[in-house]
Amino acid sequence: MAGNSFGDLFRITSFGESHGQCIGGVIDGCPAGITIDFDAIDAVLRQRQMFAKRQEPNKIEWLSGLLDGKTTGMPIAFVIPNTNTNAEDYTQDAHLLKPSHANYVYWQKYGLFDYNGSGRASGRETVVRVVAGGIAKQYLLLQNIDIKSYTIQIGEVAFTDFPNVEGEAENNILRCPDAAIAENMLDILEKCRRNGDTVGCKIGCVVNNLPLGLGEPVFDKLSADLAKACMSINAAKAFEYGIGYRAAEMYGSQCNDLYNSGFTTKTNHNGGILAGLSNGEMLYFTVVFKPIPTLMRNQETVDIYGNTAVFKACGRHDVCVAPKVLSVVEAMTAICLTDHLLKFNAYKNDYRRS
Amino acid sequence: MAGNSFGDLFRITSFGESHGQCIGGVIDGCPAGITIDFDAIDAVLRQRQMFAKRQEPNKIEWLSGLLDGKTTGMPIAFVIPNTNTNAEDYTQDAHLLKPSHANYVYWQKYGLFDYNGSGRASGRETVVRVVAGGIAKQYLLLQNIDIKSYTIQIGEVAFTDFPNVEGEAENNILRCPDAAIAENMLDILEKCRRNGDTVGCKIGCVVNNLPLGLGEPVFDKLSADLAKACMSINAAKAFEYGIGYRAAEMYGSQCNDLYNSGFTTKTNHNGGILAGLSNGEMLYFTVVFKPIPTLMRNQETVDIYGNTAVFKACGRHDVCVAPKVLSVVEAMTAICLTDHLLKFNAYKNDYRRS
Amino acid sequence: MAGNSFGDLFRITSFGESHGQCIGGVIDGCPAGITIDFDAIDAVLRQRQMFAKRQEPNKIEWLSGLLDGKTTGMPIAFVIPNTNTNAEDYTQDAHLLKPSHANYVYWQKYGLFDYNGSGRASGRETVVRVVAGGIAKQYLLLQNIDIKSYTIQIGEVAFTDFPNVEGEAENNILRCPDAAIAENMLDILEKCRRNGDTVGCKIGCVVNNLPLGLGEPVFDKLSADLAKACMSINAAKAFEYGIGYRAAEMYGSQCNDLYNSGFTTKTNHNGGILAGLSNGEMLYFTVVFKPIPTLMRNQETVDIYGNTAVFKACGRHDVCVAPKVLSVVEAMTAICLTDHLLKFNAYKNDYRRS
Amino acid sequence: MAGNSFGDLFRITSFGESHGQCIGGVIDGCPAGITIDFDAIDAVLRQRQMFAKRQEPNKIEWLSGLLDGKTTGMPIAFVIPNTNTNAEDYTQDAHLLKPSHANYVYWQKYGLFDYNGSGRASGRETVVRVVAGGIAKQYLLLQNIDIKSYTIQIGEVAFTDFPNVEGEAENNILRCPDAAIAENMLDILEKCRRNGDTVGCKIGCVVNNLPLGLGEPVFDKLSADLAKACMSINAAKAFEYGIGYRAAEMYGSQCNDLYNSGFTTKTNHNGGILAGLSNGEMLYFTVVFKPIPTLMRNQETVDIYGNTAVFKACGRHDVCVAPKVLSVVEAMTAICLTDHLLKFNAYKNDYRRS
Repeated sequence: MAGNSFGDLFRITSFGESHGQCIGGVIDGCPAGITIDFDAIDAVLRQRQMFAKRQEPNKIEWLSGLLDGKTTGMPIAFVIPNTNTNAEDYTQDAHLLKPSHANYVYWQKYGLFDYNGSGRASGRETVVRVVAGGIAKQYLLLQNIDIKSYTIQIGEVAFTDFPNVEGEAENNILRCPDAAIAENMLDILEKCRRNGDTVGCKIGCVVNNLPLGLGEPVFDKLSADLAKACMSINAAKAFEYGIGYRAAEMYGSQCNDLYNSGFTTKTNHNGGILAGLSNGEMLYFTVVFKPIPTLMRNQETVDIYGNTAVFKACGRHDVCVAPKVLSVVEAMTAICLTDHLLKFNAYKNDYRRS
Repeated sequence: MAGNSFGDLFRITSFGESHGQCIGGVIDGCPAGITIDFDAIDAVLRQRQMFAKRQEPNKIEWLSGLLDGKTTGMPIAFVIPNTNTNAEDYTQDAHLLKPSHANYVYWQKYGLFDYNGSGRASGRETVVRVVAGGIAKQYLLLQNIDIKSYTIQIGEVAFTDFPNVEGEAENNILRCPDAAIAENMLDILEKCRRNGDTVGCKIGCVVNNLPLGLGEPVFDKLSADLAKACMSINAAKAFEYGIGYRAAEMYGSQCNDLYNSGFTTKTNHNGGILAGLSNGEMLYFTVVFKPIPTLMRNQETVDIYGNTAVFKACGRHDVCVAPKVLSVVEAMTAICLTDHLLKFNAYKNDYRRS
Repeated sequence: MAGNSFGDLFRITSFGESHGQCIGGVIDGCPAGITIDFDAIDAVLRQRQMFAKRQEPNKIEWLSGLLDGKTTGMPIAFVIPNTNTNAEDYTQDAHLLKPSHANYVYWQKYGLFDYNGSGRASGRETVVRVVAGGIAKQYLLLQNIDIKSYTIQIGEVAFTDFPNVEGEAENNILRCPDAAIAENMLDILEKCRRNGDTVGCKIGCVVNNLPLGLGEPVFDKLSADLAKACMSINAAKAFEYGIGYRAAEMYGSQCNDLYNSGFTTKTNHNGGILAGLSNGEMLYFTVVFKPIPTLMRNQETVDIYGNTAVFKACGRHDVCVAPKVLSVVEAMTAICLTDHLLKFNAYKNDYRRS
Repeated sequence: MAGNSFGDLFRITSFGESHGQCIGGVIDGCPAGITIDFDAIDAVLRQRQMFAKRQEPNKIEWLSGLLDGKTTGMPIAFVIPNTNTNAEDYTQDAHLLKPSHANYVYWQKYGLFDYNGSGRASGRETVVRVVAGGIAKQYLLLQNIDIKSYTIQIGEVAFTDFPNVEGEAENNILRCPDAAIAENMLDILEKCRRNGDTVGCKIGCVVNNLPLGLGEPVFDKLSADLAKACMSINAAKAFEYGIGYRAAEMYGSQCNDLYNSGFTTKTNHNGGILAGLSNGEMLYFTVVFKPIPTLMRNQETVDIYGNTAVFKACGRHDVCVAPKVLSVVEAMTAICLTDHLLKFNAYKNDYRRS
């Protein structure tokens, strides 16, 4: 299957290149009759831009599927013009392989060496996901399902109490629940900016009020589809939910979540997903992103003929996918959960409670 | 979409319950003309059984899609009878919610409380994946693509040199590359067995000779589909590839893989996948599994009416998904890679090199 | 995508060859809690056999997905052993291309020349569809949706009042609404049997009580998916719904269905589907099947080396796909409608009536 | 699955309403490196417009997936602005159910009564298919596969020699192979225009040089997918391939296609598809379309409250889907064949000829 769509019943198809005339998407399968808060979606895009080096107004043009501010059940298409594409930024290094960057593998797979931005592999493509996720989030909110993400690690600075996210997240751009840690994280970003370096990060995501039973065994487990959703984001290197990686060192007698009499659990090591199905507890997971590969300093490399060369980026490049990626993690989560909620609706019926 | 199929062009559909008459599967989309080594598949199933508490001969009955030992291009169906299903093992605890176990969520989703084994949620379902993966592995081997998995952590005992797996893996049942560490891991398993406890583990997987270009941007990245493949395995809690979780603490200047003049890379922090496409380097990733939730000791719980109760498993239960899960990780990897290889074949053509 | 599955949310995967050990299928996505009337499914298979030359007991072995006679929401797998496979019937003509038959094209596509029955291309594969359709029909009946098919043409003998099917259909094996015409049709079949010839037919199908709104514009129109469902049956050559082929010669002033005040229509030239959606009127359509290509008389042909030869079938072959195909048309219709009904459930919500 | 996409490996996603700001589409899965002749696509759209009542410049804006006139392997998005949308044409009849028209069923399904044009159900949506099909046709032409369609019936005037299409098709706008019959067809269209009536038609389509083996048994037969492709076009009521409907009255001894020594066939009653696979002979089929339901004369109807009323269309409406639909039939055929050709590439390998 062609790879630019995600979701079965609620499906986003993404198109457009970083330095083409626009990026855009088509949302197919959005139920009819939902009133859309367009300002809320614009606000997320504005928030994203606050730390971005490339300034883009990100004016969304809604093309179809809406009438009087409501969804019609028809595909919702939108485009966002690229206004700030300085191709000349890239021409001087036109034939260099950029370390840990898409250009070599795209060249080999597609037979084209597109030196101009990074085309579809650019982080700019994720704006499309944020817009589609904005629609999905509004559908979920009608059912009180709420998705929030947090920066919980940048470089060696980590917030270790995740998923206990009560605190200061609303008060700093990184959405780190601890204000002092947020400051330290910002220091690292600033240091990278000065050094022409970049840095990795870990994002945590929490979903409240998810109904029990989302997920379709055995392959389309909710955990498996969330993993795919998040690992499809640029630079993602790892995904865990619930106790996650620490599960490797735990014993069953420590790890098991015991039941209360109301069928809630005393602990939530499973992170809200049991046997691949949402179990009614809070859903939480983390995603780790590698440092952005484009550095504003010299790197050894080779050109397309194999000759050694030195590459130093120009153009406008962020030093960390955080905080912009927060909105992308929330968006992919929202799309994935909406798709599963529609499947849940499809299969539930009056016979199964007989 | 119904959730019991995985893959688009090479697709496995799985069926059967742990304590039903059989488990089985249908492989659709296997190219015609491949000579199948059935003994190799049987050997993997025998190997799996060596540490298993439930003894099953796992006799595969091949039902279709084969002629004179070769694939015909038609769907390959198979069943494996369940011979050792002691339903009475389960009747005494018929109405108890088992901690961290599927029975409560399945009951709520499907309206059935199946106390009998754990139905589709049982690890037994993974045998189907191993058989289908066995076919996929043989297809991949024709192109010299080789998949191997290793136990790299059980409880607090870890092999920390992954993906450097040269060593003793062939000589111990856990396929741990270090013989002494393997002994310590086995000690933990033995201790669990004595204590009625269980333990988590981490599995590493390495793929050699994968061609460049597998993966379909932007959603069906090879990394995203491998994450889904592996996270769909029972008890999986985390997935990482390449440098993985450590990427959060790294700087771009440390993490980037620099190119050699032959387009290979000096390091392989990306784990063989760049921008979602295989880049021709060795592919490696890890998967973490939680402890098996069924303990042979008392656990507090509630019954289906919410009354407190004590649950102590009977039946036959393993203490760790390793080493059995090694074959499942390899199988899901093989199915995922075969599916992507067929897509690669579909899209490549003579025009892209013009 | 591999081609042996049909449906998205309610999906049948079919496997098995005509002269292999069995045929079978997996139904994925059947809602939980439905009580299955197995006798009803067996009765359809017995009915099918009454005119068949090859005698098969068609004993269905249900393998999974059922508990205490109800669906569990898990995949429902089944196999039907082939008991009556006289391979020797085919060996004498092992290297002949059979006119209008699958063997040449399968050979070229898959590189195998399977002279043994016709493998997957045999009409025997349709038994799998009938079983899966039997489950779907019972799901539909819970909602009072009723599917019935009729033989309306065999050779030059036609029942021309379709879709007015009140009458004698229950009293003759062809389910022709007119008893006298049914006799004439049976005479043609008998003549074919005597002459070693075969004959084509047209089947009509009527669905009552279908709710309004099934079908997903613009590509997955109900009419388009029914066309695919029916045209995927062996030997199908044409599909029409409502006024069908006669629409080419009609004027809009004749063809339009005018509305009554209760939103029903005065005529039903649209056959229950308007703009690709069921409109609440009776659904009706026809499917035409070519004569079975295997004749019990000499036909000129060539062998696999291109040498001229004469082929005269042995084996046991029907003279017309009717009446056996009646159950297949109903089954594919039931599968298609169930799949669309689940999609309808997925997308409907409380917001769309605001 | 959301219904606005067609194809698996080569997939078109369509969006936009008749009287919205634009219509458009995304083509995902087009192989890289194909030089596109944009003028050829524009020419088809211009040709379409020659008989259309609504004048639209149909200026295609290509948004992505192209570089220096070649496909890049990335999704190809395009929009076509609607310039000529006189919403006021529709307001006077805002609450009337239009006979045989989408508005009632869309209202019931989606909860919206869109009186404004017919939204997605308008024939205008088919322009998107024509553009996507234009890309597909160019891919097919690289392999010498050629698709041509013909008007073979309008009302009572029919060209009866189809698929013998040698003749005058290039010299009349209806592409009827016989010039005198074309004149009679045009007379009928003119008569409808004078009478405020509309008329049905039959379109024939011929594909030359299709390789043997396209189609994936047993459900994704080439014939089944072509039927779906064509029956998804607005107003389609019937589909047949090869001998088609006449097969019902034929005997096997008449209908079978006998082989020549070179494996070609003496006749082509199967229309180029045998057992669901292309067999290397010329592919041909027909599609019947009902009269356009919007008449420029009074029709009895009811309003949304069930009160009787009279509807007389204003707006700009064609009298027959021909000749515009010729390009749509070719386009859907091209998309379907390209999708199957990519699947064929996926599964073919060196092992199957061993």
